[in-house]
Amino acid sequence: VSGVARPLFAAAALVCAALGLGACANRPAATLEVATKATTAELLAASAPAEWRGLDLANTLDMRLSGDRVVLIELAPAMAPLASANIKTLVRAGYFDGLSVNRVQDNFVAQWGDPAGETEPKRPLGAAAATVAPEFERSIAGGPAFIPLPGHDGYAAETGFVGAFPAARNPSEGRMWLAHCYGMVGVGRDNAPESGSGAELYAVIGHSPRQLDRNITLAGRVVWGIEHLSGLQRGTGALGFYEQASQRTPILSVRIAADLPAGGVAGTLEALSTDSATFKGVIEARRNRRDAWYLRPAGHIDLCSVLLPVRKKPS
Amino acid sequence: VSGVARPLFAAAALVCAALGLGACANRPAATLEVATKATTAELLAASAPAEWRGLDLANTLDMRLSGDRVVLIELAPAMAPLASANIKTLVRAGYFDGLSVNRVQDNFVAQWGDPAGETEPKRPLGAAAATVAPEFERSIAGGPAFIPLPGHDGYAAETGFVGAFPAARNPSEGRMWLAHCYGMVGVGRDNAPESGSGAELYAVIGHSPRQLDRNITLAGRVVWGIEHLSGLQRGTGALGFYEQASQRTPILSVRIAADLPAGGVAGTLEALSTDSATFKGVIEARRNRRDAWYLRPAGHIDLCSVLLPVRKKPS
Repeated sequence: VSGVARPLFAAAALVCAALGLGACANRPAATLEVATKATTAELLAASAPAEWRGLDLANTLDMRLSGDRVVLIELAPAMAPLASANIKTLVRAGYFDGLSVNRVQDNFVAQWGDPAGETEPKRPLGAAAATVAPEFERSIAGGPAFIPLPGHDGYAAETGFVGAFPAARNPSEGRMWLAHCYGMVGVGRDNAPESGSGAELYAVIGHSPRQLDRNITLAGRVVWGIEHLSGLQRGTGALGFYEQASQRTPILSVRIAADLPAGGVAGTLEALSTDSATFKGVIEARRNRRDAWYLRPAGHIDLCSVLLPVRKKPS
Repeated sequence: VSGVARPLFAAAALVCAALGLGACANRPAATLEVATKATTAELLAASAPAEWRGLDLANTLDMRLSGDRVVLIELAPAMAPLASANIKTLVRAGYFDGLSVNRVQDNFVAQWGDPAGETEPKRPLGAAAATVAPEFERSIAGGPAFIPLPGHDGYAAETGFVGAFPAARNPSEGRMWLAHCYGMVGVGRDNAPESGSGAELYAVIGHSPRQLDRNITLAGRVVWGIEHLSGLQRGTGALGFYEQASQRTPILSVRIAADLPAGGVAGTLEALSTDSATFKGVIEARRNRRDAWYLRPAGHIDLCSVLLPVRKKPS
């Protein structure tokens, strides 16, 4: 394939670590002497099987866009239990089937749900709640484990991970929250904080809009297939809404992975545990790139540049 | 238009400030009592005509993709004089005409140039140099003015702007450089630092990959039409290269705007000067969003979240 032989960035390590790509499983295992001098690709190749986990099938959405393009979203019930539950109620009722991606605003979000306007009849929410209490942040006390990331962040006292999710916290306030990084999925709302039901969801597709942190409920993360949202044609209406109904991307179906035979596509994948030694090593390797292309390692990585390695389960 | 009536984010202020959208000129002027309490939209509407500048037509590339989609790139000769000059030599010789966008890697870059592989004959560079000395950074002494941005940054001691471009510097080292923010355009290179001629260019289309800073020459910024690059289908080959030639997006032509009658599309636009009071006010307004949707202003903005307001010249 032309071009592949001349990577203008030495980004090979990125390929298997990037959201939505699963090339890691094919890499040969390597013997590593010192983990902190290895590249991301070498670290992943040398990882232990136990450092990987299957996706949380009971909390993973399998969204099929037209053309049967697969987008998998892991929900975050530890941080947004009410939103996660309401979204699952909607999904189980088939709420999203036949709806569409209605808004793609460049360098911001792709958003999906019912395209009906203010004055048109909306699809009924059935057993799901029309309003959900805000889950913009929560107390650190009693909350899930927080895996800290070293280094400065302008938006929060500390950044890190809660399970698969980028997060931040401020110990002096006793508060923690999920962070608006690329691929994160949130619950659209109007001005009223409780107005987001989960019937309209968005995914971040641009430079991470961290100013949204603590202002809206993040309910999960695209762990597979973000490119099917980020690569959509941008809407030319206000806020990136499509001006023509024909420009919208149809949603064929959304299902809970656990409701599909063997979990569907989600059942074939695994993610690197963020509390694993390899994940820690990957962060260090990406703070200081060591392949031949880089002349000056950054000595830093910002929260939203840390990618979640996801791969096909080894057979 | 359905959906527009219910913005799930109060992002109206973003619309006219976003790269590639030029809705600002239509906003009515407002009387502002205190600039620091206004929203971005209000500040832009109240800006003085003299705070806007025409694009630098002698250093702006007018790239036409198939369908006559317009992408405008302002070059940065103050920071990358050699690369800018070599790119202009290539452009004036028609080098890019009939070439293509060959790589679109999700959450990273779109890259264009000659799609021929390692073993295939490449289009000759003509009078342009095949190698160009690295312009990854430069001395602060004798360099262009630096307009600082308040707040922490993990990658650099200070961040700010050099003309239209996001930049960073480290006074203790006496060095400054352009920063890899969304929409910035760089000069692809192989491992050798001087191997980037400008014949292969890339634009950032994802979360800003600041680890590239000081490792590769940034030569400019997409100031109009980034969505025609960021919205392209992602390549499925290694590093996001397309696997089929038919998937590439043809480049109809690249011209210097100053060589087009009245500067072409670039001649119809103006950008907010980054040394203007309104730009300073916009940064403050975006550090602390004040519209009704936001409950908790961030008190911070990271360098790559600061957008360059570009609009149609008022008639």
